[in-house]
Amino acid sequence: MTHPYAVDLNCDLGESFGAYSLGHDEAILPFVTSANIACGYHAGDPAVMKRTVRLALQHQVAIGAHPGLPDLVGFGRRDMAISAEEAYDMTVYQLGALAAFVRAEGGTLHHVKPHGALYNMAALNPALAEAIAEAVYRVQPEACLYGLAGSALISAGRKLGLATAQEVFADRTYQPNGTLTPRRQPDALITDSATAIAQVVRMVKESRVRALSGEDVIMQADTICLHGDGPHALEFAQQIRARLEQEGIAVRPYSHPTTA
Amino acid sequence: MTHPYAVDLNCDLGESFGAYSLGHDEAILPFVTSANIACGYHAGDPAVMKRTVRLALQHQVAIGAHPGLPDLVGFGRRDMAISAEEAYDMTVYQLGALAAFVRAEGGTLHHVKPHGALYNMAALNPALAEAIAEAVYRVQPEACLYGLAGSALISAGRKLGLATAQEVFADRTYQPNGTLTPRRQPDALITDSATAIAQVVRMVKESRVRALSGEDVIMQADTICLHGDGPHALEFAQQIRARLEQEGIAVRPYSHPTTA
Amino acid sequence: MTHPYAVDLNCDLGESFGAYSLGHDEAILPFVTSANIACGYHAGDPAVMKRTVRLALQHQVAIGAHPGLPDLVGFGRRDMAISAEEAYDMTVYQLGALAAFVRAEGGTLHHVKPHGALYNMAALNPALAEAIAEAVYRVQPEACLYGLAGSALISAGRKLGLATAQEVFADRTYQPNGTLTPRRQPDALITDSATAIAQVVRMVKESRVRALSGEDVIMQADTICLHGDGPHALEFAQQIRARLEQEGIAVRPYSHPTTA
Amino acid sequence: MTHPYAVDLNCDLGESFGAYSLGHDEAILPFVTSANIACGYHAGDPAVMKRTVRLALQHQVAIGAHPGLPDLVGFGRRDMAISAEEAYDMTVYQLGALAAFVRAEGGTLHHVKPHGALYNMAALNPALAEAIAEAVYRVQPEACLYGLAGSALISAGRKLGLATAQEVFADRTYQPNGTLTPRRQPDALITDSATAIAQVVRMVKESRVRALSGEDVIMQADTICLHGDGPHALEFAQQIRARLEQEGIAVRPYSHPTTA
Repeated sequence: MTHPYAVDLNCDLGESFGAYSLGHDEAILPFVTSANIACGYHAGDPAVMKRTVRLALQHQVAIGAHPGLPDLVGFGRRDMAISAEEAYDMTVYQLGALAAFVRAEGGTLHHVKPHGALYNMAALNPALAEAIAEAVYRVQPEACLYGLAGSALISAGRKLGLATAQEVFADRTYQPNGTLTPRRQPDALITDSATAIAQVVRMVKESRVRALSGEDVIMQADTICLHGDGPHALEFAQQIRARLEQEGIAVRPYSHPTTA
Repeated sequence: MTHPYAVDLNCDLGESFGAYSLGHDEAILPFVTSANIACGYHAGDPAVMKRTVRLALQHQVAIGAHPGLPDLVGFGRRDMAISAEEAYDMTVYQLGALAAFVRAEGGTLHHVKPHGALYNMAALNPALAEAIAEAVYRVQPEACLYGLAGSALISAGRKLGLATAQEVFADRTYQPNGTLTPRRQPDALITDSATAIAQVVRMVKESRVRALSGEDVIMQADTICLHGDGPHALEFAQQIRARLEQEGIAVRPYSHPTTA
Repeated sequence: MTHPYAVDLNCDLGESFGAYSLGHDEAILPFVTSANIACGYHAGDPAVMKRTVRLALQHQVAIGAHPGLPDLVGFGRRDMAISAEEAYDMTVYQLGALAAFVRAEGGTLHHVKPHGALYNMAALNPALAEAIAEAVYRVQPEACLYGLAGSALISAGRKLGLATAQEVFADRTYQPNGTLTPRRQPDALITDSATAIAQVVRMVKESRVRALSGEDVIMQADTICLHGDGPHALEFAQQIRARLEQEGIAVRPYSHPTTA
Repeated sequence: MTHPYAVDLNCDLGESFGAYSLGHDEAILPFVTSANIACGYHAGDPAVMKRTVRLALQHQVAIGAHPGLPDLVGFGRRDMAISAEEAYDMTVYQLGALAAFVRAEGGTLHHVKPHGALYNMAALNPALAEAIAEAVYRVQPEACLYGLAGSALISAGRKLGLATAQEVFADRTYQPNGTLTPRRQPDALITDSATAIAQVVRMVKESRVRALSGEDVIMQADTICLHGDGPHALEFAQQIRARLEQEGIAVRPYSHPTTA
């Protein structure tokens, strides 16, 4: 049977560090189809990377590199005024490091998704976006670039001919121009699970999302970002996956049309 | 013309970091045939790695990863009580990061040589040596493992079927058992250039070195370690290279017999 | 009422880092009398240090600096071949950083206790021990130096005229020479709470401990190390504190006889 | 003899790190009156801090802490989106660490001057400025806060009653509103030594500077920033010092009127 609809569920994993444990990687893995694995800059260390790659392979989940800013204490969440060249360099470095663990375990690197502030800056800043895309293109051209749907990162990836996956969020509201409502605004988050799930189902099936203003916005949903921590993360992952399948939506790692 | 003898001249490069400059990479490159490029743990950063890989490619010098201990302030020179698994993990990580820059520039990773305390510990400790060799084997099995001639690292590489290159030192004296005289001993260093050069010529041609005790020791010299800093580094590199060529010794990147 | 016996209960605190949480600082604080606060090298960051100093002051617990090796990923538990001068330097640095937070909150730095591998190396290596003691002496001469009972660190502190507190362990067995049984040995740990508590009560009251060999060893117990994590840490802290008080032993921060 | 005019010459020092050497600290020290010593975040390490404090004391130069952003590879020059609380925390930490080395050597901490991007952000952002001033006030209230003349940092220091020193630049041009011409503009730098020196002499004697627009701007010059590296740094330091003395301007560490 061919599914008319398909979507990927991705989650940030491997964010522990040394003696510090973060997230519930083993528990969330059965529900997701792609894992974004931290590469040691904002989180993760070589031991954690190896362990997480092995876990992802056991669960047959597609493996992605999740490069971040060199800011461990800030978990890569603080914007830094890096140059495009620095963005390129740090992406090559982290991507290569993660790819080596994947290769050591006989796997394949499926995608690259920048983390935190690097992700946000790359969504808005074409120069940074192009630098990150260039890094993927030169090191792992067969990998897919994950970015915020409609962002500069997606455009940059396409310009180089990379496979790209448009990422959407179940629990975030959207603006009329298709951007996420900033977190500092009171109505940025969708706290009701049913509403959140209905939003992504509609994005997958109709390529549309209702903005806060009430208008419909075109929004392609190739992959949905799930959170691996928080009190309800597991429950929500379970619910969203069940509902997508009930809706006849294939839940599987993103496979770019031209490369499928 | 086939040379009956051949040897590689290797040098540690790419040891600058951020605003800090170290060594004379551009000046030494014309004289060496292999570059061991720091990978960000004991020295180097992504920008330096990219620049150094490009420089090495311009000079047609074989590129090696030079992984070290995670001790930037100590330049990777202080022994750390790491486990074999940690040695494996940090080698995979650094090797992968450097390999990505090499791949991005269209080059090939030729070898891996551990740095400083990691090199010394791997020379003596079979468990660490095997872990490092395993990392190379799983990530870059076609790469050559450089280690102290006659050390545990060479044995570990051979056991896995890796190409290995036995490294010797021009400016260090040897003990009757083939180990280097420890640096804290007064006669550890050979300060006279002519003596140093004669020692390596003999190692290459006769596979022998005169130990401090006066006895001859068998010593295979596949690659000679040159220093990239210090007041006389350049002059010495020039001299040793000229003399090796005068002696009819081909100076070229190490090529393992079985893979040549 | 004067207690004929007194002892301090110390615990390592402030070991969280950035997004990473470790230990149960708030829960353990009511049971301890001294807090050893991590200083950013093996654990802790400036925000955590500030928060932990405030917590300790709220609970009227004596505050100590807990300097460690510069090895965040290894949690300061891996021996490093540092020089005595490096031990001095890193102790001054971390001690000063923590003291600044204490000063900013209007408190007093009461003691210094090295962490992990630095603690262990300073127990055995007189040169490292003297360097650490010297750092305390030059920066905070009124602070008390906590070290393994009978160790080189205690001797080094005394030689400089520092107040020193001999630390003992409830849950570790002792050798006939007064050292701790190494952890790798099967009988290194005391897992029965009653036995552990009886051991420290006897050390406090009789200055004696029964070694594994069955012999009695002299062992002065000025301060007892409690663990802030692990499943039974809180319960054990509660039990040991209750029992000490039942035995008529005053539980209070260590106060050196000559400075009391 | 009382000088009617006085000014301080400050310089960033102690910016070496581990095996990396930067600047010419010993050579520049005879010409300056204040040293801003890096504290390990953007540059410097404990060994360098100790050495630099000793050097400064030998040259009877006033010692200041020079805290920066936690960005060693970027030398603290890249803006980071830190919160005011994080600015407070990192200032307390670094200030305390440096103060400990000063105390260990029997000296006094004279001032605090933020470095690089932290300095620039604190000049413009009142919340960051107040956080930094608060850190100095709570840890070292007798220390003087150095900041860009007329900046938010100076205002924040004054609000708390701290001694403050207005810093000016010899080699930078000024805008009509009293700010520095941004470096990316072509006329940001004054490359002619005589012009640069004349500018600071006028600032000291007349509290005025000619802006690029040709207008005169009020500009109080308590301390002049000299650079410790660059090909002409030493020569320029020598020239400016000689000229200031010829002009009858006392060159000495800044001493705040109310505390003099």
